[in-house]
Amino acid sequence: MSTDPLVIFTPSGKRGRFPAGTPVLTAARQLGVDLDSVCGGRGICSKCQITPSYGEFSKHGVTVAEDALTEFNEVEARYDRIRGLKEGRRLGCQAKVQRDVVIDVPPESQVHKQVVRKEATMRDIVMDPATRLYYVEVAEPDMHEPTGDLERLQRALAEQWEIGEVRTGMAVLRKLQPVVRKGNWTATVALYKGHNDTHDTILDIWPGFFEGRLYGLAIDLGSTTIAAHLTDLRNGSVLHSAGVMNPQIRFGEDLMSRVSYAMMNPGGDVEMTAVVRGAINALAQSLAAEAAIDPGQVMEAVFVCNPVMHHLLLGIDPVELGQAPFALATSNALSLTAPDLELTAMNPSGRVYILPCIAGHVGADCAAVALSEEPHKSDDLVLIVDVGTNAEILLGDKSRVLACSSPTGPAFEGAQISSGQRAAPGAIERVEIDPATKESRFRVIGSDLWSDDPAFAEAIGATGVSGICGSGIIEAVAEMRMAGIVDGSGLIGSAEQVGTPRCEATGRTHSYLLFDGSAEGGPRISVTQGDIRAIQLAKSALYAGARLLMDEMGVDKVERVVLAGAFGAHISPKHAMVLGMIPDAPLDRVFSAGNAAGTGARIALCNVASRREIEETVHRITKVETAIEPRFQEHFVAANAIPHATAPFPELHKIVTLPDVSFNTAGSGEDGGRRRRRRG
Amino acid sequence: MSTDPLVIFTPSGKRGRFPAGTPVLTAARQLGVDLDSVCGGRGICSKCQITPSYGEFSKHGVTVAEDALTEFNEVEARYDRIRGLKEGRRLGCQAKVQRDVVIDVPPESQVHKQVVRKEATMRDIVMDPATRLYYVEVAEPDMHEPTGDLERLQRALAEQWEIGEVRTGMAVLRKLQPVVRKGNWTATVALYKGHNDTHDTILDIWPGFFEGRLYGLAIDLGSTTIAAHLTDLRNGSVLHSAGVMNPQIRFGEDLMSRVSYAMMNPGGDVEMTAVVRGAINALAQSLAAEAAIDPGQVMEAVFVCNPVMHHLLLGIDPVELGQAPFALATSNALSLTAPDLELTAMNPSGRVYILPCIAGHVGADCAAVALSEEPHKSDDLVLIVDVGTNAEILLGDKSRVLACSSPTGPAFEGAQISSGQRAAPGAIERVEIDPATKESRFRVIGSDLWSDDPAFAEAIGATGVSGICGSGIIEAVAEMRMAGIVDGSGLIGSAEQVGTPRCEATGRTHSYLLFDGSAEGGPRISVTQGDIRAIQLAKSALYAGARLLMDEMGVDKVERVVLAGAFGAHISPKHAMVLGMIPDAPLDRVFSAGNAAGTGARIALCNVASRREIEETVHRITKVETAIEPRFQEHFVAANAIPHATAPFPELHKIVTLPDVSFNTAGSGEDGGRRRRRRG
Repeated sequence: MSTDPLVIFTPSGKRGRFPAGTPVLTAARQLGVDLDSVCGGRGICSKCQITPSYGEFSKHGVTVAEDALTEFNEVEARYDRIRGLKEGRRLGCQAKVQRDVVIDVPPESQVHKQVVRKEATMRDIVMDPATRLYYVEVAEPDMHEPTGDLERLQRALAEQWEIGEVRTGMAVLRKLQPVVRKGNWTATVALYKGHNDTHDTILDIWPGFFEGRLYGLAIDLGSTTIAAHLTDLRNGSVLHSAGVMNPQIRFGEDLMSRVSYAMMNPGGDVEMTAVVRGAINALAQSLAAEAAIDPGQVMEAVFVCNPVMHHLLLGIDPVELGQAPFALATSNALSLTAPDLELTAMNPSGRVYILPCIAGHVGADCAAVALSEEPHKSDDLVLIVDVGTNAEILLGDKSRVLACSSPTGPAFEGAQISSGQRAAPGAIERVEIDPATKESRFRVIGSDLWSDDPAFAEAIGATGVSGICGSGIIEAVAEMRMAGIVDGSGLIGSAEQVGTPRCEATGRTHSYLLFDGSAEGGPRISVTQGDIRAIQLAKSALYAGARLLMDEMGVDKVERVVLAGAFGAHISPKHAMVLGMIPDAPLDRVFSAGNAAGTGARIALCNVASRREIEETVHRITKVETAIEPRFQEHFVAANAIPHATAPFPELHKIVTLPDVSFNTAGSGEDGGRRRRRRG
Repeated sequence: MSTDPLVIFTPSGKRGRFPAGTPVLTAARQLGVDLDSVCGGRGICSKCQITPSYGEFSKHGVTVAEDALTEFNEVEARYDRIRGLKEGRRLGCQAKVQRDVVIDVPPESQVHKQVVRKEATMRDIVMDPATRLYYVEVAEPDMHEPTGDLERLQRALAEQWEIGEVRTGMAVLRKLQPVVRKGNWTATVALYKGHNDTHDTILDIWPGFFEGRLYGLAIDLGSTTIAAHLTDLRNGSVLHSAGVMNPQIRFGEDLMSRVSYAMMNPGGDVEMTAVVRGAINALAQSLAAEAAIDPGQVMEAVFVCNPVMHHLLLGIDPVELGQAPFALATSNALSLTAPDLELTAMNPSGRVYILPCIAGHVGADCAAVALSEEPHKSDDLVLIVDVGTNAEILLGDKSRVLACSSPTGPAFEGAQISSGQRAAPGAIERVEIDPATKESRFRVIGSDLWSDDPAFAEAIGATGVSGICGSGIIEAVAEMRMAGIVDGSGLIGSAEQVGTPRCEATGRTHSYLLFDGSAEGGPRISVTQGDIRAIQLAKSALYAGARLLMDEMGVDKVERVVLAGAFGAHISPKHAMVLGMIPDAPLDRVFSAGNAAGTGARIALCNVASRREIEETVHRITKVETAIEPRFQEHFVAANAIPHATAPFPELHKIVTLPDVSFNTAGSGEDGGRRRRRRG
């Protein structure tokens, strides 16, 4: 008897000998090669496409003859006619091995394909969603062996897919009989396998082979905005992303106001839960409409959010989060159903996963950042800062990770700033001040031109210059400091002291005029002493949180800084460091991670194993509570100053060439350093 | 070092040595003695009461001194003052072992106490409900170790009760924080451990030590009536039972009519589901009101029902049950939640268990009969017949059990009988006919007097004699047969043939006048030829089903007959055998099991392990489908005759002394034997 043909799969390199006549799909399964199939080898789904290679493969020590596989058969020909099969492709379930062969599994035929993020940090997501489709042939009922349709479906899943215990809910049970009959005793089921479940659950069922796809929603539920990404659960691609304002804003701009609203108004929490769920449903509905898909095919939703949003989403009164010891109702991750959260714009049997909270101030959004940025796997000591109304801060490396939350308040988002506004067209986002002339130039969102460009006015058009956003005010204050307009304590000098008429007296303090549009009926945009104080408070809180973690870790500096969040993506690392927002680090080791929380949500959506990973990681993270740590106050007060930039920033040294200045302190003490907002 | 004191528990006989100072409850737990405790030994719940015995116990080889246990302490004294402690009783968590001691655990202190049924067959139910109360002390939140309240509650259950994985739903999560604070960091939880669950589930939580009890509903959902038993889940006692008519009757008297209604009327199944759920909710509500308990403390419901009721309860269109091959949507047992079935008169997190169906015609009600009557554990060959609109029939012993369903139609329930009525006051339920005079006497429901008693008219009063119920018509026909009024083929003789003017001509056939109330404006109650035919059809179906199972089992007779169901409880075994309803068996081996299906439901409610037992039993039962079995038709036709009673019934022999008679067959063939109702 001759030796069986050798089958070698690429890119895995897995190989084995199989009797002539073995379908390629069968060989792949027996070797554990990652080759997709929804129909289980019946030539229906076309997911098991493979590309045989012919010729000599010295690397593998084989020569592949033209007849290594059986000829293109009728099933493949029909599929090619109707849907088209790429040149050189075969259906793995139809092509049978005849001689030694090398077979490539293209990425789109891999179940656990890697989805490469486009962001700078380049993190791979391996597709391994909790919910997948399976096509099955169900035995017809037999009066001699009476079993229910569900029991015969369960047996089919066991026999055809080796799936163990399977359960289902009432919705599937109600439609089961007509569906399997309509499919002439074949059906496609959406099977959910939760990472903590000992059984699979049938979420939905369709007659015959279901051509559709399954989708998931990754939702970043912020205090201010709700962002959602409609994602294809087979390949991880984002079909559509959209955001809406969180309608809870009308109950309070910041988290603490909303907690207060719940405390002061009986039923206020119920009201806030209803509006946020309504907004999520509307958002999900519009995403499905935009992508022209049936919301019934949205099988999963993953939420990341801060603890107050978390409780209000769940319908839990957040009152305990408004007072020490800031006890969460539950801190662990939650696996729920769509009806649990009254989510109507997804499959009614759909599943919801909410990442774990780290502490009463450090939410699932921070856990999502950890899942995305992986400080627990970092070789260097990384500081990750997610700046929002609260800053979530992570510090650590593979040996240990610390986390805290710091109440920065809304100043970084343009609120509490005299000319502040949200990041939108017309908002000043970049600022430069000439240290010699003290004259400034700036850029606004929506245009790439600087304000001293002759074409600037035309470029911005009717929008005009409307205000200054978070990243703009940070640059303005840092530039003012570097230009000697502001001293180390944060005081703005007078026109005489600084030597520019742009410094204008405003009562007992001074303002710096950034832009005067009044001649054209536009605004006068100044940075006031109050603005500087607001930014000082915010940056002190952020810096103090980071320093507290560094103390706890016993380090004086960090090796890498990651700025996460929408704000983090727009912030200038140089200016942030001049301002003293973040601890010293080499400028080339400061990165923006974009919406890391949203990325974490997408990872949890696309890879079910990552859910256990983040749950375990969160359990190992050491939580540091800023509210009860006296050193936080010390750091906060100490951080109030706007530091004179020093080494190790040679590039800053070059810029900051002026000797430090100090202005008189009249009128500057009224809100200096001690005023704190709790959980803004 | 001296030997530790010996502690002997009765009635278990378990014994062990424990260091002096060991609380009795601790010793019991370590020995695995069944001693109850809800508070975990904190002197709060008083469930661990024990009775120490003093003196010499030669049987155990110990002498118990008066100071064998520590003295009655302040906790016990306070409990005795407030609630009263029976003479000689101690609290097991307070009394500590000092010397050798014999300790009795009274039945009320046993968790798994046996609840003895009052019915003749005397089956023990060991209390082991799926849902129990646990009192816990929850750690307060700590900012240095941030965990949610739920996680601290889970840890408390693990540490104080050795309970592993615990989950909960949104309802508990929402109330958790206020409850544990109100209870000053103590709480009582209702914990459900399903027989298929790998985790426990918190169904509800109360602040501090919860004095209340948990309840369950055992519900027998019949085509005609819905009966429910409100049961105490600690001791199995039935607080209150009640029944209502199944309001689905307006869509069709029998099952097939309801299936037809669903087939003919789009949405008809939804309508029927809504009305039956409404009736169940109203019934459960009235039971709770009657027992003066909070429906929120009703934590479980167990349902038994036939397959059509099963599907309509679940909201599944029963159309497939109306046609071969009678496929169930699901045959396995179901563990559901109250909201799954829109059950509103119980705890919103409450659980529902529905027993498995045996086949498309043999439902969860038959499984419940099997659980109650245990044919699979029987040493003798037992035939169990549950007579309703369908008869469910079980035949077997510990080696093998067979089951089938037979379409008896509603005649046994008094329907399709000329003077028939439901079993209610005024209905004739017992009949005797003198073989010599052909005169009859009878009894009606609501009176113990026979109709020939001078006080009869006064005793029944205004109710009068209104009709004849199922057991009455069976006795009437059997008595008519024994008195020679009816011949073997079922024909009623004429006045001349029989020799009594009570035999009246009615068209081409004759009737037997049982009661003539027309002089007083009351009814004339006769047994017509049509009545005899209806009873013949019903009894033939029943007998044929039983015979079919006997054929399958390869036996000619059975050793024991159990008549189950409300009807079975009222039926006279003698008359049933004369009629040929049931196969021959010694009269003293014919038993009534009462409402065995309801008993099965109560067993499944009180003992969670019994759920697995009946699920495994049902998987082993061989289902016989009467509809496709040619021998069923043969038996059905053959059984049409009303047999001449023969041995082995000497007592019947004595009664049936007349030679057999045969009347002319005019007008008797029109519906003889072949007419069948499918699934009436």
